[in-house]
Amino acid sequence: MKQTRVVDVLESDKLSLPVTVNGWVRSFRNDRFIALNDGSTIKSVQCVLEDGTIDKTITDHINVGAALSVTGTLEESEGKGQRVEIKVTSIKIEGSADPEKLKKTILSPKRHSLETLREQAHLRIRTNTFGAIMRLRSKLSFAIHEYFQKNDFYYVHTPIVTGSDAEGAGEAFKVTNFDLNNVPKNETGDIDFSKDFFGRETNLTVSGQLEGETYAMGLGQIYTFGPTFRAENSNTSRHLAEFWMVEPEIAFCDLDGNMDLAEDFIKYVIQFALDNCADDLAFLENRLIEEDKKKPQAQRAEMTLRDKLKFVLENNFKRVSYTEAIEILKNSKPNKKKKFKYLIEEWGADLQSEHERYLVEKHFKCPVILFDYPADIKSFYMRLNEDGKTVRAMDILFPGIGEIVGGSQREERLEVLQEKMAALNIPEEELWWYLDTRRFGTCTHSGFGLGFERLVLFVTGMSNIRDVIPFPRTPLNAEF
Amino acid sequence: MKQTRVVDVLESDKLSLPVTVNGWVRSFRNDRFIALNDGSTIKSVQCVLEDGTIDKTITDHINVGAALSVTGTLEESEGKGQRVEIKVTSIKIEGSADPEKLKKTILSPKRHSLETLREQAHLRIRTNTFGAIMRLRSKLSFAIHEYFQKNDFYYVHTPIVTGSDAEGAGEAFKVTNFDLNNVPKNETGDIDFSKDFFGRETNLTVSGQLEGETYAMGLGQIYTFGPTFRAENSNTSRHLAEFWMVEPEIAFCDLDGNMDLAEDFIKYVIQFALDNCADDLAFLENRLIEEDKKKPQAQRAEMTLRDKLKFVLENNFKRVSYTEAIEILKNSKPNKKKKFKYLIEEWGADLQSEHERYLVEKHFKCPVILFDYPADIKSFYMRLNEDGKTVRAMDILFPGIGEIVGGSQREERLEVLQEKMAALNIPEEELWWYLDTRRFGTCTHSGFGLGFERLVLFVTGMSNIRDVIPFPRTPLNAEF
Repeated sequence: MKQTRVVDVLESDKLSLPVTVNGWVRSFRNDRFIALNDGSTIKSVQCVLEDGTIDKTITDHINVGAALSVTGTLEESEGKGQRVEIKVTSIKIEGSADPEKLKKTILSPKRHSLETLREQAHLRIRTNTFGAIMRLRSKLSFAIHEYFQKNDFYYVHTPIVTGSDAEGAGEAFKVTNFDLNNVPKNETGDIDFSKDFFGRETNLTVSGQLEGETYAMGLGQIYTFGPTFRAENSNTSRHLAEFWMVEPEIAFCDLDGNMDLAEDFIKYVIQFALDNCADDLAFLENRLIEEDKKKPQAQRAEMTLRDKLKFVLENNFKRVSYTEAIEILKNSKPNKKKKFKYLIEEWGADLQSEHERYLVEKHFKCPVILFDYPADIKSFYMRLNEDGKTVRAMDILFPGIGEIVGGSQREERLEVLQEKMAALNIPEEELWWYLDTRRFGTCTHSGFGLGFERLVLFVTGMSNIRDVIPFPRTPLNAEF
Repeated sequence: MKQTRVVDVLESDKLSLPVTVNGWVRSFRNDRFIALNDGSTIKSVQCVLEDGTIDKTITDHINVGAALSVTGTLEESEGKGQRVEIKVTSIKIEGSADPEKLKKTILSPKRHSLETLREQAHLRIRTNTFGAIMRLRSKLSFAIHEYFQKNDFYYVHTPIVTGSDAEGAGEAFKVTNFDLNNVPKNETGDIDFSKDFFGRETNLTVSGQLEGETYAMGLGQIYTFGPTFRAENSNTSRHLAEFWMVEPEIAFCDLDGNMDLAEDFIKYVIQFALDNCADDLAFLENRLIEEDKKKPQAQRAEMTLRDKLKFVLENNFKRVSYTEAIEILKNSKPNKKKKFKYLIEEWGADLQSEHERYLVEKHFKCPVILFDYPADIKSFYMRLNEDGKTVRAMDILFPGIGEIVGGSQREERLEVLQEKMAALNIPEEELWWYLDTRRFGTCTHSGFGLGFERLVLFVTGMSNIRDVIPFPRTPLNAEF
């Protein structure tokens, strides 16, 4: 089935030569102009029917949503909006689309809310907005791989189903092969997990970090990029029960190196999007401008989408210690005027989204890296500072998104780690293998996790995380 | 922490200049020669201690497995086996490794069986064999992304947790947030899934194909690359409960195009490995040669590892219809002499591993693409041929591996698909969204799935699939 993709047709200079394109009808004007889109680009190619060339038995089926194979010659376009168009010589209807049935779907040519589009997540990919988002998602994914591979990191597939639940990153889903009507019990009446598929209690991973660390201790520099899961009942525009995470882990790297890497990495990926997704970004930028027109002046964005991306590239991320951040927040207007829901009164307070947003959007007005958090509000594996009360943690906060990266230098000292685990009642037997990395050739090492969907949110300018993943999983929702 | 990676040191020509490398001790000979490896390459750098330069309090800790930061100058090496070496000026012990404790691990410098290595999967990455395998795995992963991105395919993250269980690719694991001690029931005594996290019964995906098809109907050409799961009690050297699969799906592509794509894709990825993993392949090749020396002549490999890979590149995959294959098998020696466990008596028989291996390894002696299988032994979504009894399925069979790819042209006709589903008792309500792709602009389309670990098996020459994934999940095993 010889064919040319629309993206190539639109760039082609092979005028007067025959060409075949396959795609779906986006519009059919005046029984004459077909806009045909094949997903290769946000642009459609205009296919022009001369009077009488195409039989009515065919043209009757040229409706929005129909799949066509169009053959013709490439010509310079006289209309505006495109350089070239196809003068049609023949059309094959691959698949029709009954206009009456189509009316009940989001493919019908009228405005549909993002919520309605979510309910038809299997069809929304045929809209301009979701085509643009998902092409960007694909390119951003590739940029992530390219960045790490160019920098000699090895990609590691850490396990999805895991028996280790001690990481404490959040509530985990159970994975089982039991008949839920008849869960086997042992003599003492407890569930007999030795009879389950894996012979033990298992769940879906909340992070590949701990396994990633063991690989960094062999390969030196690794990254993961895979799905992670949280069984948390958070019905917000920023949480998913299933999301993709990128987690690099680097041996012989301290927190400064970790911050350098995270910043360099994010900038590379954003630059890649600007370089490779110009049309899709232009479309999404315009979409936001149109959205903003409906809002009061004060709520409109200060920058266009691409200006916002360029701003990130051109400015250093502001590095601020937790202690400094607390001082800024304590003395801030919203704190003094009691506008924060959670007032900042003393060192040690956990930062809420409102505080992060104040720091990023009002105070510094740029991406911020907060570091050296109180040990008590961070995970057990983070390296304790010499002060005995802070750990070498870092969070990267982005305007409009909040936390996009969370990372740390890891506690490399066996005894300190054991003490921390004991204090938190994490049994050593569960993490014997993790502790082994500290027993045999432990070293300074660091890593971070980047929530991929939050990055896609930032780059596309979308505001609900359910709109940047193909089939979102959230409380009460696992359709498709 | 300024450092140079070993892979770069070994290529460097900055003689007499200072250099710092960090890594783990692989050996320490004559209190003088440290082989230091950092995972960046299979090769270690030789670090030479002049008498008295380094204090005994330091050298006492230079044991196998210890992590060191070594500073010195790069010099031409007088010894054989390396071009350059580091003349050490100072050493920092990052993490020691108690030789007594190390003895109980696979890090101890003696031969360990692959089975023992599996039990310490968190440490095996520090061995030459697993370093080589996992670097190859990373490069092969990247080659997959590069191939599809270069060819304008979009990467799609299909869901891992899914409510749709109708694909029939195999038994699925359940995903739940229920307290297994107290599963809620409704009035009729059935499990009340409306009370579970997703409000319905959910499981781990066995394939992203159906969701992938919906995206191909919008983006034109897509691929997935992610984890898939089978709750099958297959304790073999070729099955995993959790494995990674690559699944491209292409609109406006028939089975011939699908076969062309699969062959071109596999060759690209293998070529990439040959071009980018020479040292690791040489090591693995030599490992096989050594293994073979222990075997009787008749069981030894006919080709070296790299010759085998080149053979695949240089030969067309043999395309054979199922009907032809049955004729060949019926008339084969092992069939006539009743050596097959399952004798081939008539058209319609499902092919077993022994038959596939005969075709690939004895008859054709090259990769084989079998196509046009009997409809009865293949999935409901495969396109029915005009003969009414075969479907446009294809399997790619590789020597030593068996099936590495399974694919098909998809049934694009709504009515045929509905009839097939009805005959197999697959409820339309469960796949309403899948059927929608046939209602609105359906088209000829095709795709396939490649079992990534089987590809890694083939390229590394390993024989157990548990040795080509970092932390294998199999019946009764989900450690780490």
